[in-house]
Amino acid sequence: MAEGPGAADARVISDRLAAALPEESGDIGELVRAMRYAVEGGKRLRGLIVLESARIHGVPAAAALDAAAAIEAMHAYSLVHDDLPAMDDDALRRGRPTVHVAFGEAMAILVGDALQSLAFDLVAGIDGVPAERVVDLARRLARQSGMAGMAGGQWCDIAAERGGRPADPMAHISHIQRLKTGALFRWSAEAGAMLAGADPAPMTAYADALGLAFQIRDDLLDVDGDAAAVGKAVGKDAGRGKATFVELMGADGARARAAALADEAVAALAGFGPEADPLRDLARFAVARVT
Amino acid sequence: MAEGPGAADARVISDRLAAALPEESGDIGELVRAMRYAVEGGKRLRGLIVLESARIHGVPAAAALDAAAAIEAMHAYSLVHDDLPAMDDDALRRGRPTVHVAFGEAMAILVGDALQSLAFDLVAGIDGVPAERVVDLARRLARQSGMAGMAGGQWCDIAAERGGRPADPMAHISHIQRLKTGALFRWSAEAGAMLAGADPAPMTAYADALGLAFQIRDDLLDVDGDAAAVGKAVGKDAGRGKATFVELMGADGARARAAALADEAVAALAGFGPEADPLRDLARFAVARVT
Repeated sequence: MAEGPGAADARVISDRLAAALPEESGDIGELVRAMRYAVEGGKRLRGLIVLESARIHGVPAAAALDAAAAIEAMHAYSLVHDDLPAMDDDALRRGRPTVHVAFGEAMAILVGDALQSLAFDLVAGIDGVPAERVVDLARRLARQSGMAGMAGGQWCDIAAERGGRPADPMAHISHIQRLKTGALFRWSAEAGAMLAGADPAPMTAYADALGLAFQIRDDLLDVDGDAAAVGKAVGKDAGRGKATFVELMGADGARARAAALADEAVAALAGFGPEADPLRDLARFAVARVT
Repeated sequence: MAEGPGAADARVISDRLAAALPEESGDIGELVRAMRYAVEGGKRLRGLIVLESARIHGVPAAAALDAAAAIEAMHAYSLVHDDLPAMDDDALRRGRPTVHVAFGEAMAILVGDALQSLAFDLVAGIDGVPAERVVDLARRLARQSGMAGMAGGQWCDIAAERGGRPADPMAHISHIQRLKTGALFRWSAEAGAMLAGADPAPMTAYADALGLAFQIRDDLLDVDGDAAAVGKAVGKDAGRGKATFVELMGADGARARAAALADEAVAALAGFGPEADPLRDLARFAVARVT
């Protein structure tokens, strides 16, 4: 993430993930190697939000890093499963063959399954913070990733592709975004507050604006982007007949909305001083990124 | 489970799972309905072990029930994913079409994913027990279900089917059993001790003997069983060229070993009085069951 903020922190998160996935021999070693492959690359945006949220709330760095690695493991699992032939059937991710292309479908299913377990392992292993808060954070992660969060959103997305056009497509895709991608952004931003025992409400508002801005930017990149730069197939959403923010608002409208949402995210942090500048930068980066 | 011990408790566990999967409308409702389908049926053996382990350690009933429902959600997720075409490709489970046959492959992947999240939601939601113990139990669940536990064991099982014959097939299939099915039995038996802050060692010994006995009985049912009674395809392991305990020990040897393991499981509970009789009955049931 040389082009974005937090490149050094992104490396620290990657190192934490690598440490959680040590080299092993035998069949298990094969699984762990495929898990490492799955978590490599990526902008670590969710993990960076965790680290910055933890910083402005005074959470110990080691606890924050475990939470950051956890959300990146969870995110990586969701990508591996979403890319499967029975789901979005994508062959390219982060500029490389997807896990099922590189290692086969059975392995990809298990890599995703084991990465979800690893996410909870990392959260439940958080040290130096009262256990009540760790339990709450683990439960919140379960809710945000399960049927009423990310997994539910992915099903709604698939169902939308198969079903007819909904009556209110904008409400429909906004609902899918809140679940499918918004849920993990929300957890990431709230994590620091929850670990500090602080009110997470400003972080929730920040995350909801940033998450939606991020998704709109994703839709813009799907239309405008260069597959080599973006690192995954582009132009697929339109080909699938999926409604996108760009289609519903036009490219200019989408760009304006994403910019307004970045401003909203920044405004949500009004109660914080300069210590929250990295979070403000992340919000601006989310709508300016080219990959 | 009219034929086995704990039928009333099994119904209570089923009710707890149903309460965790409430009827909903819309696309999410479809996902939740498929999740309910996936958790229906089954002997609830792991959940019953949790309840009995909790009873002999004096754990509050509500906390025990959440843990029991959690392990059954985790077990159900593993069955849904194991049955997928890219994995074991099974069409029949618990006497009904498997989830991917009934609802499609994309749904089956998401049902498994969301059931794993639900398992952690239920554990992290355990109330009336010090939070430190809940965190430890959640982390133990992550370890037993992830790369060094159940998911790792499933990969070893798949790799064994594809690779050549290992040098020591008995050591190899014992290793797979310890991971693939043993891990969740271990968690189930330890849960009561962990929630009570007691030494889990006797429960670990109980679970390891019972889990292996259970697997040997599974192999015997795969050879001898009637698909209609067993509720899933039988005779598949031999057809796949997989080594099984029955093949390596002979049917009589396998039956004798299973009986000896049930005795071992009972012996592990020597420090407990008559309050542990239901656990002793479960061990005997595991090797006598016909489904």
